[in-house]
Amino acid sequence: MWNTGITQVEPNKLVTRGYKQDELMGKVPFSHVVYLLFKGDLPDEKTGKLFDAMITASIDHGPTPPSAQAARIVCSGGVPLPTAVAAGLMAVGDFHGGAIENAMKILYGLVEKKNKEGKSIEEVAKETVVEFKEKKKIMPGLGHRIHTDDPRTKKLFSMAKELGVAGDHTSMFQAFQAEFVKSSGKELPINVDGALAALACDMGFDYRLGKALFLIGRIAGLVAHVYEEQTREKPMRKFDPEFQYDGPAERPLPSHYK
Amino acid sequence: MWNTGITQVEPNKLVTRGYKQDELMGKVPFSHVVYLLFKGDLPDEKTGKLFDAMITASIDHGPTPPSAQAARIVCSGGVPLPTAVAAGLMAVGDFHGGAIENAMKILYGLVEKKNKEGKSIEEVAKETVVEFKEKKKIMPGLGHRIHTDDPRTKKLFSMAKELGVAGDHTSMFQAFQAEFVKSSGKELPINVDGALAALACDMGFDYRLGKALFLIGRIAGLVAHVYEEQTREKPMRKFDPEFQYDGPAERPLPSHYK
Amino acid sequence: MWNTGITQVEPNKLVTRGYKQDELMGKVPFSHVVYLLFKGDLPDEKTGKLFDAMITASIDHGPTPPSAQAARIVCSGGVPLPTAVAAGLMAVGDFHGGAIENAMKILYGLVEKKNKEGKSIEEVAKETVVEFKEKKKIMPGLGHRIHTDDPRTKKLFSMAKELGVAGDHTSMFQAFQAEFVKSSGKELPINVDGALAALACDMGFDYRLGKALFLIGRIAGLVAHVYEEQTREKPMRKFDPEFQYDGPAERPLPSHYK
Amino acid sequence: MWNTGITQVEPNKLVTRGYKQDELMGKVPFSHVVYLLFKGDLPDEKTGKLFDAMITASIDHGPTPPSAQAARIVCSGGVPLPTAVAAGLMAVGDFHGGAIENAMKILYGLVEKKNKEGKSIEEVAKETVVEFKEKKKIMPGLGHRIHTDDPRTKKLFSMAKELGVAGDHTSMFQAFQAEFVKSSGKELPINVDGALAALACDMGFDYRLGKALFLIGRIAGLVAHVYEEQTREKPMRKFDPEFQYDGPAERPLPSHYK
Repeated sequence: MWNTGITQVEPNKLVTRGYKQDELMGKVPFSHVVYLLFKGDLPDEKTGKLFDAMITASIDHGPTPPSAQAARIVCSGGVPLPTAVAAGLMAVGDFHGGAIENAMKILYGLVEKKNKEGKSIEEVAKETVVEFKEKKKIMPGLGHRIHTDDPRTKKLFSMAKELGVAGDHTSMFQAFQAEFVKSSGKELPINVDGALAALACDMGFDYRLGKALFLIGRIAGLVAHVYEEQTREKPMRKFDPEFQYDGPAERPLPSHYK
Repeated sequence: MWNTGITQVEPNKLVTRGYKQDELMGKVPFSHVVYLLFKGDLPDEKTGKLFDAMITASIDHGPTPPSAQAARIVCSGGVPLPTAVAAGLMAVGDFHGGAIENAMKILYGLVEKKNKEGKSIEEVAKETVVEFKEKKKIMPGLGHRIHTDDPRTKKLFSMAKELGVAGDHTSMFQAFQAEFVKSSGKELPINVDGALAALACDMGFDYRLGKALFLIGRIAGLVAHVYEEQTREKPMRKFDPEFQYDGPAERPLPSHYK
Repeated sequence: MWNTGITQVEPNKLVTRGYKQDELMGKVPFSHVVYLLFKGDLPDEKTGKLFDAMITASIDHGPTPPSAQAARIVCSGGVPLPTAVAAGLMAVGDFHGGAIENAMKILYGLVEKKNKEGKSIEEVAKETVVEFKEKKKIMPGLGHRIHTDDPRTKKLFSMAKELGVAGDHTSMFQAFQAEFVKSSGKELPINVDGALAALACDMGFDYRLGKALFLIGRIAGLVAHVYEEQTREKPMRKFDPEFQYDGPAERPLPSHYK
Repeated sequence: MWNTGITQVEPNKLVTRGYKQDELMGKVPFSHVVYLLFKGDLPDEKTGKLFDAMITASIDHGPTPPSAQAARIVCSGGVPLPTAVAAGLMAVGDFHGGAIENAMKILYGLVEKKNKEGKSIEEVAKETVVEFKEKKKIMPGLGHRIHTDDPRTKKLFSMAKELGVAGDHTSMFQAFQAEFVKSSGKELPINVDGALAALACDMGFDYRLGKALFLIGRIAGLVAHVYEEQTREKPMRKFDPEFQYDGPAERPLPSHYK
């Protein structure tokens, strides 16, 4: 006999984390249900709003990341969609999505240090930049190959501020980044993984769920890639690194999203 | 050179299906973004509301389905979370989640037949029940091992009716089910896969995305199972078929969900 | 209570298909043990010799097939070796390795037809070429993108002939191919999948194991690709379709292999 | 442009690690080809003989390990054989097969220490037992839940001794084990993972290939499990922990294996 705290199943009744599934449906947005499954409780209104945006931030960044490439290539061998999507998720590792969990571990440590030693965020950030430089350690979640000013990061931090959800971990990362730029002269921005890490810490997520936060958004994009591969491409095609976007041109949100 | 219609990536700009990701974030619920990725366009308000509930309907049904078992067992070998979650998704096949796509194929055919032959839904349903009986074919999405009156199905159909989103495919499945019960005397209900199939047809989804509709909800539950396995169980444990739920007792939704 | 006919495990004793594992070890070549696991019995001497070569025929054909590409790309995300190797195997599907099982199904059918209808191999081959042309069906295992005269096919067929292991299924495929070339004017050779299919039929393998015959050899190559990726390449590298071989120059077998 | 040292593919020519594949086939046993792929060179006669037994040692230990369970459960969802086999391999992790690589790392370190500090194997073993006790470290590859005297370990060590292939790493592990038993009073044997680790070190394998040595044998057993599940069991079956072996009774090797 062993225990599980996720879902209680009885004939004609499914209760997840204490909530009847048919009551969640239609009342609680799917993204908040994800939060419930990951954290054990439903978010308050503001946290729920930010969490929804956090998952959306990871949906896709085109066909070049290992996850999208792997999903498409496995698909091209002629396998069912779930197998190809799973292969894509399997590419999520230390170097692809892994920065979230690694940054979370560090941020939790730094805020704990601040609290224990009674220092300010700025003091701890400063010390840490020096320490990282000496030990040649790299801060995960800092810097990006393409985006110098990632619109997703900006949006997440501005939403967090507006909603009043950001806390010490976000401030700590921002102080670290500012200090890093000052001391190194390198204009490295906090990237989307870094923003997710900071906010997930402020929400109290276990760092071991860092990659899960990425998976949940990314699976939506991977399904789109596999479906597109199945319906637009020939099997066993030679993958050409040159591609172009031929989807809908940039457009405003439909009016019902204001 | 090849084409992709999913996401356009430029420095500091990510545009998915024509929408800037940072505009989607915070304005468009994640579940609607999933709809966008799967179908190419954002849903109208009512469809979006129903689609959110449809994904939520697949989140979890305890540790016994192959996907949850596989995810937990692979986890117990000592592997990263994404690998264990992927193993769970790989169990989604012809017999686990596969009814959605199979029912969709049939429902699309039946409604097409109705339209082509100028028959009523009831006539086609009646003919089909007879034909299935003769050919010993089974209707996917009908009947359940545990639930005689699945609360998720009920909720999906009542929401669809209320929102005015249900169409011919839903009516066709309901007519088929009624006819089947009358003619066979077996009180088989439409199960949750069947409800998802009917509604996905009414929304115009390609049947090849049937399993994807299941994956997107289920990955949330699988993350919870793998995380619980990692944090509550010993590695390489012997899986005992006896387990009990020790999570939160049944509780009402927080007031901000009304 | 359920049954398994594979391995009996008792304290200090492991018996596979009736043979003690410690007796198999050192006496029975690993490839023959594979045959035992797949078929239930050990091969006779000649069959064992050919089967060993059959598995070896699938070890690798460079970094371009979907399996090798997927394994390398998943590896580049920063995951454990087994996850990356598994992703490679997942690409083995209808279009990658799938020809073996499809050709086996057809060859079993054709030889059965020959026996039932009392026709010669040549007659059935001729009829089938005509039938395939009319129905625009393609014979799996025929033709290759690169190799017009695949050295692996040649070796397998010559070994089979020499050892006296080839039977009706091999003759049938060869008759079909000759007839196809005569009637179509296209010089399509039997490829390595086709040769494996014909010989596996002559050995009496279930066609459902067609992909397994490929997996067992290919996993060796995939391990080499993943290990090479881990030790020679940077994580998250951009995959360049241009590559060159820089391994050992062509060399003769060491003398102890004669 | 990047480099690969595995296989050179030209029209009608495949050369792996410098050897033409059609020359390997029929002359070099498959297991030696695996050695070639993993290490870069073919083994000498004695090493090849032992390596074949080493791979065979991992083929299967019944349906209870995570790999076999996962493969069967994923299969029961109704997916292709390669997907189910891959799910089994994905369970190979830190706690399932992982002892090989962990023991290798330690054994390489201990033998290096012996050589550097000019100590005897016995001295280093003694020091290490003391150190592990103090630090509450556990030696991977020591002890087994079922087998107190694993017949595979015995066979591997006796073959290695007979063939003269065993070296310092094997002696080191044996000295450590003897010392451990003496000092702790616990009769823990070297298990099959431990034996594989010691011998793989003596052969000079990179410890990062530890899990690969396990995968290559185990995939054969996993194919047998998936095939048995497909052909003997119903889909989506409830996994019962009670099972019995109903395969062939214990039997002697056929005479052509002496």
